[in-house]
Amino acid sequence: MDERVRNYEKVIMGIDPGTNVLGYGVLGVNGKQPEMVVMGVVELSKFESHYKRLHRIFERVTGLVEQFLPDELAIEAPFYGKNVQSMLKLGRAQGVAMAAALCRDIPIFEYAPLSIKQAVTGRGSASKEQVANMLRHILKIREEDMPSLLDATDALAAALAHHYASSRPQMPKGPTSWEQFLRQNPDRIIRK
Amino acid sequence: MDERVRNYEKVIMGIDPGTNVLGYGVLGVNGKQPEMVVMGVVELSKFESHYKRLHRIFERVTGLVEQFLPDELAIEAPFYGKNVQSMLKLGRAQGVAMAAALCRDIPIFEYAPLSIKQAVTGRGSASKEQVANMLRHILKIREEDMPSLLDATDALAAALAHHYASSRPQMPKGPTSWEQFLRQNPDRIIRK
Repeated sequence: MDERVRNYEKVIMGIDPGTNVLGYGVLGVNGKQPEMVVMGVVELSKFESHYKRLHRIFERVTGLVEQFLPDELAIEAPFYGKNVQSMLKLGRAQGVAMAAALCRDIPIFEYAPLSIKQAVTGRGSASKEQVANMLRHILKIREEDMPSLLDATDALAAALAHHYASSRPQMPKGPTSWEQFLRQNPDRIIRK
Repeated sequence: MDERVRNYEKVIMGIDPGTNVLGYGVLGVNGKQPEMVVMGVVELSKFESHYKRLHRIFERVTGLVEQFLPDELAIEAPFYGKNVQSMLKLGRAQGVAMAAALCRDIPIFEYAPLSIKQAVTGRGSASKEQVANMLRHILKIREEDMPSLLDATDALAAALAHHYASSRPQMPKGPTSWEQFLRQNPDRIIRK
């Protein structure tokens, strides 16, 4: 276990698994305040074979899970892609990464890229650079600690989006239509 | 280790990973003669959650690998599917199954459904029932040992197709065109 996660109430690991690069980011939370513990990337393009890449993903995610002992795993998971072949490959990359967490019964939460951007910057159409800048601001990351590859910030953004989603107070369920509002609130109808 | 695989020179495990059912089949080989060791299915449809299914696939494939200690894993892997979403899910199922083999450095070989049918029955367009019947004939499987779900025979067929592919003698590479043949065999040209 890494000393850096010892004093957190909750540790969230975010990953952005791709077939060329895997991004990861670890967030430590005390109360409501999240802090960055670490972020980085695993480069896969040096491996020619698809299996070597999958093996490397499994090995590295297993290593990260053992090192940082996350309570929860947040994964950036696009649901649409260019074509069926690229989606099959992406699914495999996600599958081996998930297996590393499933081995240790760590709950997995998926977030679409758009909803991660929305949660972190307020805009679903934000660029990767804007997401990175907002993360730097929110988590007070020093300039020299910012990674050169945005797969790392994407992964950390997934962890932060999950932190927001899981710590948000549940809103009481309101009426969904005017008719329903009237049915639920008969006393609010002023009859002349 | 299962006693049934103790006396084989080589053990091949075939799997057919799907999101509803995972089929598996184990083949033991001595010399050129393959024999069926076991085949069966893991039913996944009883689990509502996608993660529970992935977890189950990982757990069961890990268990099978530990029990039968295969030297090689053959996987039935369609490369095309209905849509990107179903391919993503299939990719994940394949990914977690592969992770179980990758953990133990077992080499993985993929075969498209068509090439498995071709290898086992001689026809790429054979039905699943025809594949099952041919397997029964080739491997001398007793009627009562035949499974009710054809995912099991599909998986065993993947193992058999891999056995054929890996034990086939390499053909010497011949010329690919008439021009090439003439270049390679100048002495065969009869000049009048």
